[in-house]
Amino acid sequence: MLTPLPQSTIDPIVRMALAEDAPWGDITSQTLVPPDAQAVAHLVPREPGVLSGSRLFAAAMTLTDPTLVVTLHIEDGTTFETGALLATIQGSARSILQAERVALNFTQRLSGIATLTARFVAQTAGTRARIVDTRKTTPGLRALERYAVRCGGGNNHRFSLSDAILAKDNHLAVLARQGPAALTQALLDARTRIPHTTHIEVEVDRLDQIDALLAAKVDTIMLDNFSLEDMRTGVAHIAGRALVEASGNVTLERVAAIAATGVDLISSGALTHSVRSLDLGLDFQTT
Amino acid sequence: MLTPLPQSTIDPIVRMALAEDAPWGDITSQTLVPPDAQAVAHLVPREPGVLSGSRLFAAAMTLTDPTLVVTLHIEDGTTFETGALLATIQGSARSILQAERVALNFTQRLSGIATLTARFVAQTAGTRARIVDTRKTTPGLRALERYAVRCGGGNNHRFSLSDAILAKDNHLAVLARQGPAALTQALLDARTRIPHTTHIEVEVDRLDQIDALLAAKVDTIMLDNFSLEDMRTGVAHIAGRALVEASGNVTLERVAAIAATGVDLISSGALTHSVRSLDLGLDFQTT
Amino acid sequence: MLTPLPQSTIDPIVRMALAEDAPWGDITSQTLVPPDAQAVAHLVPREPGVLSGSRLFAAAMTLTDPTLVVTLHIEDGTTFETGALLATIQGSARSILQAERVALNFTQRLSGIATLTARFVAQTAGTRARIVDTRKTTPGLRALERYAVRCGGGNNHRFSLSDAILAKDNHLAVLARQGPAALTQALLDARTRIPHTTHIEVEVDRLDQIDALLAAKVDTIMLDNFSLEDMRTGVAHIAGRALVEASGNVTLERVAAIAATGVDLISSGALTHSVRSLDLGLDFQTT
Amino acid sequence: MLTPLPQSTIDPIVRMALAEDAPWGDITSQTLVPPDAQAVAHLVPREPGVLSGSRLFAAAMTLTDPTLVVTLHIEDGTTFETGALLATIQGSARSILQAERVALNFTQRLSGIATLTARFVAQTAGTRARIVDTRKTTPGLRALERYAVRCGGGNNHRFSLSDAILAKDNHLAVLARQGPAALTQALLDARTRIPHTTHIEVEVDRLDQIDALLAAKVDTIMLDNFSLEDMRTGVAHIAGRALVEASGNVTLERVAAIAATGVDLISSGALTHSVRSLDLGLDFQTT
Amino acid sequence: MLTPLPQSTIDPIVRMALAEDAPWGDITSQTLVPPDAQAVAHLVPREPGVLSGSRLFAAAMTLTDPTLVVTLHIEDGTTFETGALLATIQGSARSILQAERVALNFTQRLSGIATLTARFVAQTAGTRARIVDTRKTTPGLRALERYAVRCGGGNNHRFSLSDAILAKDNHLAVLARQGPAALTQALLDARTRIPHTTHIEVEVDRLDQIDALLAAKVDTIMLDNFSLEDMRTGVAHIAGRALVEASGNVTLERVAAIAATGVDLISSGALTHSVRSLDLGLDFQTT
Amino acid sequence: MLTPLPQSTIDPIVRMALAEDAPWGDITSQTLVPPDAQAVAHLVPREPGVLSGSRLFAAAMTLTDPTLVVTLHIEDGTTFETGALLATIQGSARSILQAERVALNFTQRLSGIATLTARFVAQTAGTRARIVDTRKTTPGLRALERYAVRCGGGNNHRFSLSDAILAKDNHLAVLARQGPAALTQALLDARTRIPHTTHIEVEVDRLDQIDALLAAKVDTIMLDNFSLEDMRTGVAHIAGRALVEASGNVTLERVAAIAATGVDLISSGALTHSVRSLDLGLDFQTT
Repeated sequence: MLTPLPQSTIDPIVRMALAEDAPWGDITSQTLVPPDAQAVAHLVPREPGVLSGSRLFAAAMTLTDPTLVVTLHIEDGTTFETGALLATIQGSARSILQAERVALNFTQRLSGIATLTARFVAQTAGTRARIVDTRKTTPGLRALERYAVRCGGGNNHRFSLSDAILAKDNHLAVLARQGPAALTQALLDARTRIPHTTHIEVEVDRLDQIDALLAAKVDTIMLDNFSLEDMRTGVAHIAGRALVEASGNVTLERVAAIAATGVDLISSGALTHSVRSLDLGLDFQTT
Repeated sequence: MLTPLPQSTIDPIVRMALAEDAPWGDITSQTLVPPDAQAVAHLVPREPGVLSGSRLFAAAMTLTDPTLVVTLHIEDGTTFETGALLATIQGSARSILQAERVALNFTQRLSGIATLTARFVAQTAGTRARIVDTRKTTPGLRALERYAVRCGGGNNHRFSLSDAILAKDNHLAVLARQGPAALTQALLDARTRIPHTTHIEVEVDRLDQIDALLAAKVDTIMLDNFSLEDMRTGVAHIAGRALVEASGNVTLERVAAIAATGVDLISSGALTHSVRSLDLGLDFQTT
Repeated sequence: MLTPLPQSTIDPIVRMALAEDAPWGDITSQTLVPPDAQAVAHLVPREPGVLSGSRLFAAAMTLTDPTLVVTLHIEDGTTFETGALLATIQGSARSILQAERVALNFTQRLSGIATLTARFVAQTAGTRARIVDTRKTTPGLRALERYAVRCGGGNNHRFSLSDAILAKDNHLAVLARQGPAALTQALLDARTRIPHTTHIEVEVDRLDQIDALLAAKVDTIMLDNFSLEDMRTGVAHIAGRALVEASGNVTLERVAAIAATGVDLISSGALTHSVRSLDLGLDFQTT
Repeated sequence: MLTPLPQSTIDPIVRMALAEDAPWGDITSQTLVPPDAQAVAHLVPREPGVLSGSRLFAAAMTLTDPTLVVTLHIEDGTTFETGALLATIQGSARSILQAERVALNFTQRLSGIATLTARFVAQTAGTRARIVDTRKTTPGLRALERYAVRCGGGNNHRFSLSDAILAKDNHLAVLARQGPAALTQALLDARTRIPHTTHIEVEVDRLDQIDALLAAKVDTIMLDNFSLEDMRTGVAHIAGRALVEASGNVTLERVAAIAATGVDLISSGALTHSVRSLDLGLDFQTT
Repeated sequence: MLTPLPQSTIDPIVRMALAEDAPWGDITSQTLVPPDAQAVAHLVPREPGVLSGSRLFAAAMTLTDPTLVVTLHIEDGTTFETGALLATIQGSARSILQAERVALNFTQRLSGIATLTARFVAQTAGTRARIVDTRKTTPGLRALERYAVRCGGGNNHRFSLSDAILAKDNHLAVLARQGPAALTQALLDARTRIPHTTHIEVEVDRLDQIDALLAAKVDTIMLDNFSLEDMRTGVAHIAGRALVEASGNVTLERVAAIAATGVDLISSGALTHSVRSLDLGLDFQTT
Repeated sequence: MLTPLPQSTIDPIVRMALAEDAPWGDITSQTLVPPDAQAVAHLVPREPGVLSGSRLFAAAMTLTDPTLVVTLHIEDGTTFETGALLATIQGSARSILQAERVALNFTQRLSGIATLTARFVAQTAGTRARIVDTRKTTPGLRALERYAVRCGGGNNHRFSLSDAILAKDNHLAVLARQGPAALTQALLDARTRIPHTTHIEVEVDRLDQIDALLAAKVDTIMLDNFSLEDMRTGVAHIAGRALVEASGNVTLERVAAIAATGVDLISSGALTHSVRSLDLGLDFQTT
């Protein structure tokens, strides 16, 4: 039961992309294609994957030309094989040709994220670990890319700097200059000033940093770049008093072993910062 | 001599990204870091590459806090080694921490593109072939990603659907339904209707499609998914009567051989649609 | 140690207000006041209160005319008496007169909120209860009004529908149609789908609804329109297994008694939906 | 015959409010409420009043979900009793729950203004005096709040600094430094420079300031903070040669007496700067 | 004493024009002109006229490149001869070349309007008649074009449909269907509903329509397409009971005769709807 | 076969113009015209011309009130006589009256451009010369005005500084300071750096400048302010090695003679910078 993107998120970003790609029209279609030429086109994958962004695909078509008829054959979050029929568009050939690239740019990228996420998630089957994203998203596309992570079966981390506290190494480095107890005190003070709905998470590099955070009653402790053995030790020591997130050096090869240490969360920036677009094609029906 | 991004392109997109990442402030820094804490931070690569986006990095800092002082140590388009000093920021610790992620998100992505482009360009040394980008860019970031391609020594293709004619397979499929001579006639007609400054390029899948395009006096012929041998035949046949662009199946392994066929241009969507962010870190000076 | 509003929040909203109030200039000042007339003006309260919005006041002045010099004499969150000197502006009389109303509209409203909040907060001294706001804010001004609540010593609740779960009576009514166990199951399912940083709060109207929520391990239970006696019973029953928020019928007369029941949070929509602007005046110095 | 708000005014402000309240969706409804759950909800007042903002209420619903069906049972400007049926919404439970707060925030505030205005207007029955608003409106909501004043039977003053001249005490203070005749001369000069459609109004604090304004042929004279006796003297002295506006210390208790002095206009900032939201509820039908 | 355009009006429209003219930079300057080339350029008229828009000229330069130094040698509203030195720009040759066209487009158009207006105004010397503009302005440029009319010594009419009532022939045609007394009654009713600051003007085609308007106490009567003799009759009949505006068939040849009839206002759409840009050149200093 | 304006270009600019003309409604119609009054109105020219902008006319109506029914009787680019029926609008009288001025402002201006262009084009019949526009367009309306030029049978030049190289006298003056060979070298270098789709054009003032440009293989040479005899000499000398554009002193009287010299292109700034609006009227049907 995937939470859909609100249409109010989809439309403005698709409009922006269409304007970026055709600031004063598509001169190729308009000069070469007869205005009354009709077409039927199919969205077909050249490789297997997990679909994400089908409603952005449809919006690119219908915001270009409201008379285009788009039929989505499978839902976002669904796995497909090479050659599957994902969507069909009928209507003005000019309009479909104008919208094609923008429609594909969104869907290929988001399906690439969903597909990669699904591979990570598959590695954690049978463990308590959830795969989560980070703030290492493409500027302007965070809401879309987080949605793609969900399509792949992953979970989202906080959306932004404004909705949860996450103190990382650089925060700790600055606080460390205030003296040894500064962190614990700052965290306890923070509780009295932030909304009661705000979660507090802190990153640690070493096991000996954990006790101060438990004393400060943080909600989640992030173990950054820990060895598998240290992760296991950390999980055992924390013993449910906080959630445990593993981060750093999270690869497809290593993620099952990380999940097996008992951590609650495994975060990966690569889910969104280093994406290969999934190869989807738009085939014009020829008859 | 790299054409810089206009500041009027940089500022709005950085402002948008900052707003996306902190719609109502950075609650971590604001609750944990003393308002008067000062810091010095260095931008340092964890791997070698080509720099791109340094002025976006700087803008993320100074648009967050105009009192931050950013010093850029090398220029965009420059190659660097692991551990080089790319930039230094001095000022409010809170502000640097707030801007850090957005600053890195831009620079890591663009430097990733520049670095990959430079690898392709290096493979074409000594040939006439130029590496060019495509419209397979991230929605909203086309101007930035094209700039990154230039930072890596590549060239840009047309910016959008509005500034050059490029008829691809789907356009030809629609035109084919109008009869065998429809394409040539449509192209000749187009010349009388478009600005004299508009370039006409057409994609072909087979060698026998070329003569009709030469008859129509197109400016560039794109050989899509040709074998190396067919590329050589095509280049010889066209013989300077049009520019020749190779596209499809352009990999780092294969690009030198493509360039050796004598084509003028080699376009690659992967330069922008499947980017690995370059690993750059922000190190807070500890003293 | 009050978290300030980011300047990037202040400037656009003040620019919008200035444009709303003078879409094509201030014709009164421009036709009646000599362009070179200088003035000194003082912001002075006509009644005691707590200051909020002083930087919006300053921005209204300097965004109208960057040559105006604004000196803020006390900080937001500070209590003042009638006749205190809050701020001084020096510069072009035309510009000050043009900016005056917008500057006052922001500061009077926000100081009104801060002052009312401070009265509620004062009533809870010596208890664990925190005064918190709601989503009953003025459209477009939520970030400012939440800030004003903090200036008055209150705390913020969630910012929006996107950053915490808060199931209220109408949600429960819809869920109730799915059968008796639907709520508990839906809440347990929710945990697996939302970010681990997301807080879950549920509103109850009766004591007998509490156990299902404790079983679902919600983070906060809101007791809506409870009698003082039922609140005490609820707090004792929950016994620290969730935070307890009191809402409904929260008046200045009753808030101390509510706080004395041991609840953690007391929320009041009136803090922002029914505000009396504080009476602040701008006095032109006459010499 | 009330002039309605243009839809082009309603839609952007409602969209902004919806975006402010759910920047990336309503996570409560989306995680707890089944996507296919239907609901019927009624807008019902908890106290008597005058309706204003019903089309903003409807827009909040339909801009959230165009499939919601909203029926407005009474028109803006109509008086209602506690428990009346104001509007009915049918459709997706998720969507109604998401839009509820924004819909109420607009309608409660505007109905609060209309209700308060109607009380002032009722006090002036049988006199020539009209109740008018001021520029002391909420930043960003001026068009809406002026509309609410009209719903309550009041009239609007000028919209902004750009559409009428209104010289107040601070303008006069600046002009006074130019010498005793400066005001009259500046006003006569103004007539030759402003559009012939522009109205000129000037505020006075004392009766002896009036003759200079009559000499300058101003259109309206505002008597600020006058005693009732001085108002009567002023009205008699002006004798129809200009409109007369009373301002300052305008309370529900005093407004009938002010109206009885014969003034043409009574302006009150409190109509918009110190509003109590009217208590309206959204009741989900349970069956 | 000309009322200047607010900088907040100038900057957004100049930014828009710069973006329209160089969406991703000026490729001519950037590829041909060395980045460090400096230049001095002079704004010089090729024909005599009245200056308007000099601050838009300066803004086009400095918003393109804040390091450009612009010196304005004469003020808007001043008459100049061919070859006069209007402004000087110093700085980066690239930047000046990029901004040149946008800078000229604004200034040539506005100076064209100011110059034409001044010719009309000159014809009315010694009469009571003022030359005023209309709503026949270029979409998006109304504030600028009204300013240019003032630079030429003209006056402005109402800004928009929102700030004065002006009933024209088509309004009267619709009202006529309601019966003979509908207009007078509608105008009297209007007074009770609009702000007291709102001016009422009505257009007539025939002398026999005037008495109904005087009965309705309108503020201004517009005589549309009247013969000179009928104008004189109309002015004599109205006899100061309303302002009189002449419109229709207002040419440079005829305007003196119109002014001599005694009308208060002469409006001309041609001032803004049919403008010849004034010929201004940007001369690069060569040494 | 005219390339239409995309609806995404039309709607925002029409919305902007409607907002500029009625920021808070049309108070004339709203106070004088009954809300249920219906009307039928016809768009009728008062002089012959070529239509352009009919869909902006329609959009002004339907964006004001979606229930208005607009019927366009002839297509853009069509020639019409005085009194022809161009369009009919049916629906709310209030709405038509509100939209009238904005609808006419667009259509009169664009039809003025199309009509003037058609006169120039008619003079070039039987020659190879095409009439083209320039960047001397109204700020904000470039896409519309270029479209109007096409409606008149003209062609467009480059859209902006970003999509073609056009070196003019001031560029050459700056380059000249770098030495005699600087221009040729800069042009040859440019080819390696710009997209292969980018056209290079250079302006010359004298015949002896041409050979350097041919050596640099520029695509188009602009002969600026040449005598007819020098144009003929230039065309003969260039002999098809580049396109030839004539500019400067292009008048209706002289354009046929210019076309007869054999140039490929004739550009005229006056097409867009000095336009007389075509006289179109909106006639309300009276029955």
